[in-house]
Amino acid sequence: MKELEEKILKEGKVLQGDILKVNGFLNHLVDVPFLTEMAKTVADRYKNKGITKILTVEASGIAFATCIGVCMNLPVIFAKKHKSANISDNLLTAEVYSYTHKVDNYIVIERDFIKDDDVCLIADDFLASGSAAFGLEKIASDGGAKIAGFAFAIEKGFQEGGKILRDKGYEVCSLAIIDDMTPENGIKFRAQ
Amino acid sequence: MKELEEKILKEGKVLQGDILKVNGFLNHLVDVPFLTEMAKTVADRYKNKGITKILTVEASGIAFATCIGVCMNLPVIFAKKHKSANISDNLLTAEVYSYTHKVDNYIVIERDFIKDDDVCLIADDFLASGSAAFGLEKIASDGGAKIAGFAFAIEKGFQEGGKILRDKGYEVCSLAIIDDMTPENGIKFRAQ
Repeated sequence: MKELEEKILKEGKVLQGDILKVNGFLNHLVDVPFLTEMAKTVADRYKNKGITKILTVEASGIAFATCIGVCMNLPVIFAKKHKSANISDNLLTAEVYSYTHKVDNYIVIERDFIKDDDVCLIADDFLASGSAAFGLEKIASDGGAKIAGFAFAIEKGFQEGGKILRDKGYEVCSLAIIDDMTPENGIKFRAQ
Repeated sequence: MKELEEKILKEGKVLQGDILKVNGFLNHLVDVPFLTEMAKTVADRYKNKGITKILTVEASGIAFATCIGVCMNLPVIFAKKHKSANISDNLLTAEVYSYTHKVDNYIVIERDFIKDDDVCLIADDFLASGSAAFGLEKIASDGGAKIAGFAFAIEKGFQEGGKILRDKGYEVCSLAIIDDMTPENGIKFRAQ
């Protein structure tokens, strides 16, 4: 999405350690009118897939997923983060490694909220190693639901998450894919 | 809002300890089309107040605030939770007591994101003791912004938050106000 690439170049900041700071429009101050335009692109891509629910993870995925929900007129489930494996029959859980905090976390969704006739779109602000996406994939599958595909605002194409998802045969809609970024040389986007 | 009261009666569950479980449409599985209808009521109430930004707290306030942002065509800032007082010149911070977890937390917003010509609407899913709302009020004030008012999906009218905010002279738009609730006798709404 050309407008997103331009916004990343204009407002984003590349920091050491493969960090892209876009908290001025995506995940702290949220430019909701712009995210709605981004969400329209996702909605258009997935409009004929019979999607019934959008899954994301708290906290930074919620705003983007909600905008997609508005555009597709669909509910959103946000998985909650837990420090411990909350073993309970009522919860669907997955282990997720946090690269930011260097710890294993668990994400949970109440079992009743995913039905075996659900068709899920998994959405998040970022795709990098894919850890959160794989966690949501596991939860949707454990709940018996189908997965129609994935939607991300920004994919770090130089990390392995996107390749793994596509190799598994999933449809992945990343609105901007960054193939290379450094504080010195800036950001290179993949042509889409 | 009549439809919200009906939905709370139909889908909500009153638990011991003044807990109202509405995670089937408000703060886990999010019924985005319904929240958009709720947000329209808020947008209509505040449409002539010159609001420039909507403030909320991660994680459960984000979906409702985002829907208001969509309806008002405005950005949303969600304050982040921190375990420690993150003393930094770049952050606006406030102490917030979590009744759920019985600990003091801090909420932070990057200082640059609030300008002294901003007019803020403070929004959240619940208003009870008002701790999070007072934290956002402090952050907005410390940032030099004006506060146009507050918007909540559900107010627990038997706790003191709403009274304190109204006594301070703020406009408070709570879409449903619960004056009494027990697992035995159910929920009593305040006439609005």
